[in-house]
Amino acid sequence: MNALNVSEYMQTLGLQARQASAAMARADAATRSRALRALAALLRANVDALQQDNARDIARAEAAGLAAPMVDRLKLTPKVIATVAEGCEQLATMPDVIGEISGMRQQPSGIRVGQMRVPIGVFGMIYESRPNVTIEAASLSIKSGNACILRGGSEAIDSNKALARLVQQALAEAGLPQDAVQLVQTTDREAVGQLITMPQYVDVVIPRGGKGLIERISRDAKVPVIKHLDGNCHVYVDDSADLDMAVRIVDNAKTQKYSPCNAAESLLVARSVAGRFLPRIAAVFAAKGVEMRTDAGAAALVGPVPGARVAPATEQDWYEEYLAPIISIKLVDGLDEAIAHINRYGSHHTDAIVTRDHMHAQRFLREVDSASVMVNTSPRFADGFEYGLGAEIGISTDKFHARGPVGIEGLTSLKWVVLGNGELRT
Amino acid sequence: MNALNVSEYMQTLGLQARQASAAMARADAATRSRALRALAALLRANVDALQQDNARDIARAEAAGLAAPMVDRLKLTPKVIATVAEGCEQLATMPDVIGEISGMRQQPSGIRVGQMRVPIGVFGMIYESRPNVTIEAASLSIKSGNACILRGGSEAIDSNKALARLVQQALAEAGLPQDAVQLVQTTDREAVGQLITMPQYVDVVIPRGGKGLIERISRDAKVPVIKHLDGNCHVYVDDSADLDMAVRIVDNAKTQKYSPCNAAESLLVARSVAGRFLPRIAAVFAAKGVEMRTDAGAAALVGPVPGARVAPATEQDWYEEYLAPIISIKLVDGLDEAIAHINRYGSHHTDAIVTRDHMHAQRFLREVDSASVMVNTSPRFADGFEYGLGAEIGISTDKFHARGPVGIEGLTSLKWVVLGNGELRT
Repeated sequence: MNALNVSEYMQTLGLQARQASAAMARADAATRSRALRALAALLRANVDALQQDNARDIARAEAAGLAAPMVDRLKLTPKVIATVAEGCEQLATMPDVIGEISGMRQQPSGIRVGQMRVPIGVFGMIYESRPNVTIEAASLSIKSGNACILRGGSEAIDSNKALARLVQQALAEAGLPQDAVQLVQTTDREAVGQLITMPQYVDVVIPRGGKGLIERISRDAKVPVIKHLDGNCHVYVDDSADLDMAVRIVDNAKTQKYSPCNAAESLLVARSVAGRFLPRIAAVFAAKGVEMRTDAGAAALVGPVPGARVAPATEQDWYEEYLAPIISIKLVDGLDEAIAHINRYGSHHTDAIVTRDHMHAQRFLREVDSASVMVNTSPRFADGFEYGLGAEIGISTDKFHARGPVGIEGLTSLKWVVLGNGELRT
Repeated sequence: MNALNVSEYMQTLGLQARQASAAMARADAATRSRALRALAALLRANVDALQQDNARDIARAEAAGLAAPMVDRLKLTPKVIATVAEGCEQLATMPDVIGEISGMRQQPSGIRVGQMRVPIGVFGMIYESRPNVTIEAASLSIKSGNACILRGGSEAIDSNKALARLVQQALAEAGLPQDAVQLVQTTDREAVGQLITMPQYVDVVIPRGGKGLIERISRDAKVPVIKHLDGNCHVYVDDSADLDMAVRIVDNAKTQKYSPCNAAESLLVARSVAGRFLPRIAAVFAAKGVEMRTDAGAAALVGPVPGARVAPATEQDWYEEYLAPIISIKLVDGLDEAIAHINRYGSHHTDAIVTRDHMHAQRFLREVDSASVMVNTSPRFADGFEYGLGAEIGISTDKFHARGPVGIEGLTSLKWVVLGNGELRT
């Protein structure tokens, strides 16, 4: 396709999505659940066919010399397919929030006023490599009564096309418009530029991928973006912390997995407990090969630990999202300095305090300006499934509209419902 | 100020606002209420001084030949001052939503997860002429625990400066930072350009004014905008409507005031009742001098009414927000056509159905894609005060974040609160 054709093609997808969104908003919960269960059944019935399409993507990726972990992310194994099918069925059984009316109250004029939860309309999703995201996004879209336009990575185009065909078949089986879920069939980069600049057709765009992609899309988009930038998550070990618990939480926060955005990247320790706490956690880090970038005070306490890899922290380290076996460590005078440090250097993603002091816990929750604030547990819990949202379309580091893990509600809006009996404004 | 100075000046305001916002977020409800009551008292104690400053704006406006209604909008009469002072006191007594935690539920892992309502941070507000908006915005900002930067119209600069001084005095009396409410002291247009492009300092911008202003700001802003474009509001008179009620509602919707955005601009009538309904409402419009722009079917029914001013509607009329004694009128086959027409031509602001049919009412509420949907009452009720929000910072025609009348909650966000007892992610 040339640029003009791509533009026309995307406009067509947009118009079709907008039209389909009205039918989706009208559809009742049972119909949308039927589509989700049909999708699960189709996924299970087509494991072999899906793997054949997927094999073409994998062969192309291997021929192009893609790194093994990247190739792994592409794979639609029977286990991956079973997992996304199960996800569709779980969504089908979850309570339906569309059409729910809340807060209906009578006003002095006599009118009754409440709010109804309705689909947001059409969302665009831009994501990289992993083809299972196609099913996750499609199923969340169906559950929330929206239409969506999906733009997956070019590496997974054959797998994504095969999955999108099954989604459209499931929609048709349930009597819903196939255009409610459309996959962008071209890998032309121009398609993304179009997708994010059609406010008449697309109500919100959700990019999932590297920071560069998300910054580029946020800068160029003419529609709202639910964006997830970096996760520079902190654990603060307070004066009154249970130090056994603190060791377990900080270990889990840093080492349970290094790559997730909700892994801890920075450890703050109250000076009064640093002497008892830091050597213990440093021994854990030493055993697991985690490098510690510390201020001078912390260096003096962790340096003597056998096997510890210690380097001095620079100003930049306090901002860093390592996604690696590295952690920055700083001593602080107490709660005030911890909160100020997190609000200054953090990325407003997820931060935790370990404390037994009720007032400190309350102040940390209130004053740390992050999407998730935690007491006595691991920031690794910041996740739509762990929060009981059933599914997660992304994690927002914004404060506007959706914040933190975004589930079905993030794809809806509340409109005002007013019931009267002939009342007039005077 | 030259452009460079304006830029530096706005950056300074931004930095000060960001710093003040942390203190505001920490402040308890009693302190913020104290500031609101202090502001009310200061307004009442300074009626004469405010009128002197206001007189300079009025003299300048009259010398510049501003139209009388525009000059009227500028006036800080004792009544206007009493009203805004009363508004501050009402806000002070309203329940405080900041810090409120909702939906706290235990998850399978053992963690308890809920959401806390917190201030959004810093908002910028851009508005025209009426100086009382300065107090409305400042008081909502204080109540919601935010900091704000206010940019009023150049016509009201002296009045706004005087009002802003009282706001800062009230903040100081309550022990809150004066920078929590800052008025842009220059009338340089460059200041607006800066205000809407400082995402590091400003979290959301709220323009209030003409459509041109709002479109320009939405186009150029680098931060989210709570925007209110036009209000092309419809009343649909259904087959089963109580026609006496329908006459009263349509009359109220169109003629109670012509200029508000929630006045009706378009009337849709089910063909089956048009013969009995249209001559009656046409007689009302004829008596009040309201011009009717109609399709051919409606023309045949309203044309014979004595004194009726009737003109054929063009395609453009169905899109039009007249804000004047004009209404477009169209016959429709029934509910489906009415909903399709409203979703196509409306501005997604406020639309109402008059009906006795329960299923029609439910479908209208669900399927009309507008910020406010109403049954058997007048769209003129679409208003923050009438909805019980206590105050209104604007009306949003967007679906993202805030929709319809925006009160205190629109200036807040929900962050996730996670309480644990040493739980770890596995």
